[in-house]
Amino acid sequence: MEGFSFWTDVRIRFAETDAQGIAHHASFVVWLEVARVAHLAKHAGGYQAIRDGGIEALTTEVNLRYHRAAYFDEALRVWARCGDLRGARFAYEYRVERDGELVADGYTRHATVDRDTYRPTRVPAWLADAIATAEASSG
Amino acid sequence: MEGFSFWTDVRIRFAETDAQGIAHHASFVVWLEVARVAHLAKHAGGYQAIRDGGIEALTTEVNLRYHRAAYFDEALRVWARCGDLRGARFAYEYRVERDGELVADGYTRHATVDRDTYRPTRVPAWLADAIATAEASSG
Amino acid sequence: MEGFSFWTDVRIRFAETDAQGIAHHASFVVWLEVARVAHLAKHAGGYQAIRDGGIEALTTEVNLRYHRAAYFDEALRVWARCGDLRGARFAYEYRVERDGELVADGYTRHATVDRDTYRPTRVPAWLADAIATAEASSG
Amino acid sequence: MEGFSFWTDVRIRFAETDAQGIAHHASFVVWLEVARVAHLAKHAGGYQAIRDGGIEALTTEVNLRYHRAAYFDEALRVWARCGDLRGARFAYEYRVERDGELVADGYTRHATVDRDTYRPTRVPAWLADAIATAEASSG
Repeated sequence: MEGFSFWTDVRIRFAETDAQGIAHHASFVVWLEVARVAHLAKHAGGYQAIRDGGIEALTTEVNLRYHRAAYFDEALRVWARCGDLRGARFAYEYRVERDGELVADGYTRHATVDRDTYRPTRVPAWLADAIATAEASSG
Repeated sequence: MEGFSFWTDVRIRFAETDAQGIAHHASFVVWLEVARVAHLAKHAGGYQAIRDGGIEALTTEVNLRYHRAAYFDEALRVWARCGDLRGARFAYEYRVERDGELVADGYTRHATVDRDTYRPTRVPAWLADAIATAEASSG
Repeated sequence: MEGFSFWTDVRIRFAETDAQGIAHHASFVVWLEVARVAHLAKHAGGYQAIRDGGIEALTTEVNLRYHRAAYFDEALRVWARCGDLRGARFAYEYRVERDGELVADGYTRHATVDRDTYRPTRVPAWLADAIATAEASSG
Repeated sequence: MEGFSFWTDVRIRFAETDAQGIAHHASFVVWLEVARVAHLAKHAGGYQAIRDGGIEALTTEVNLRYHRAAYFDEALRVWARCGDLRGARFAYEYRVERDGELVADGYTRHATVDRDTYRPTRVPAWLADAIATAEASSG
């Protein structure tokens, strides 16, 4: 994956399918989150570290384009990368693949807020540094 | 419904179906909760009132027996009643019907805990009274 | 709501919240579907009628922007309108409100396919007509 | 785990938590299914093999007892074993553990039906044999 260096794998659960016989489109939103959490765990000490630092990262936008149907018990690879870090905002891009074939792609946008006041708060320097380092090393 | 006086209606969402073409069995667990929340809203000032009183009501057991399959967009009636209130514990019974036909039945058990310490705490008297009154009036 | 004439109401379920204490962002994707299904039920004989006609409507894109957090047991109004009907494609726009205040907005895109071959199939004339009539009458 | 020889691991997703700050009780129902599917994949050619054989395995009962709360990002081990195979019925037992500590336990019951007629159909001999062999070898 050009530009991506991190991925996580998910296997489609039966509960994630629907009566069309395919993975329900809302299931993908959860898989993006799984990848985001795994990415932060690897590069930034984990989502829990962010929360422990008095910060909540809210999701402010989700975009997903579905290119192929996916089915029960299939293994999907979710590529994720973080970028566009500015002030209290950052974004993630994703590609969801099955055996190298594009199934879906999309992005999410996030805002960091103070956990008590819910006011926008700059992404902490340690988190910004961790993300910058992660993406730089992914060449 | 003999012994039941409270119900709430749900319509089966497409996201709640699975690749067998029926409502996924985990969806029913959520519908029981919807009925429980509605029952508490009517009889005990609402689940939020319980939480605001420094109490969390944890679910300690779920039991569901599925008698018939249910399908997308069907209207289900979820009958619920509370009982078996003792100390820090109470229970709910349920019947899920479609046009008067039994689709599923079951029960849940719950324990009240202090919101800060998570230690078991007696069901508050106001809640116990509200529940007792509710069930007495249901004849 | 300027340009919208159809809405459906949902009440946030406890199962739809997350450990941030708010409605999980994936829950909104399901609520958009609930509104879409209700809109089709009113204007086009229902989603089931589409499926019975040998057509599946696949979701090809979801976009959601979250403007305010939403909480357990809140009542949300989901405004929906259909448009941009071309060949085998159509789209929906949404606004999610709480007491008239914007909580989220977004759109979904869809493609109609033959139920057996999963090949793109023009939106049936009866469905296209129903949608056009619905939106024209909404002034 | 005495009597259990098969397990599968899940990590608690953020979407699976609720506003009590813990994993929502309905999430466990899905994890039992994940373990069941993995068990069948190992011992009986997979759930898909069952479906391909013209059989659907319906869930007829779920029972879960929750002993401890579980939290976001925790790793849970779900032990599963199949048994009580009679005619068109079989059952599963489960224990959900975190670092060897019991978090929940329960069982599910299932019925095999013909995929076209939805009439009860004996569990196919190949499936019964596979399950019997699996459990015998688990000593």
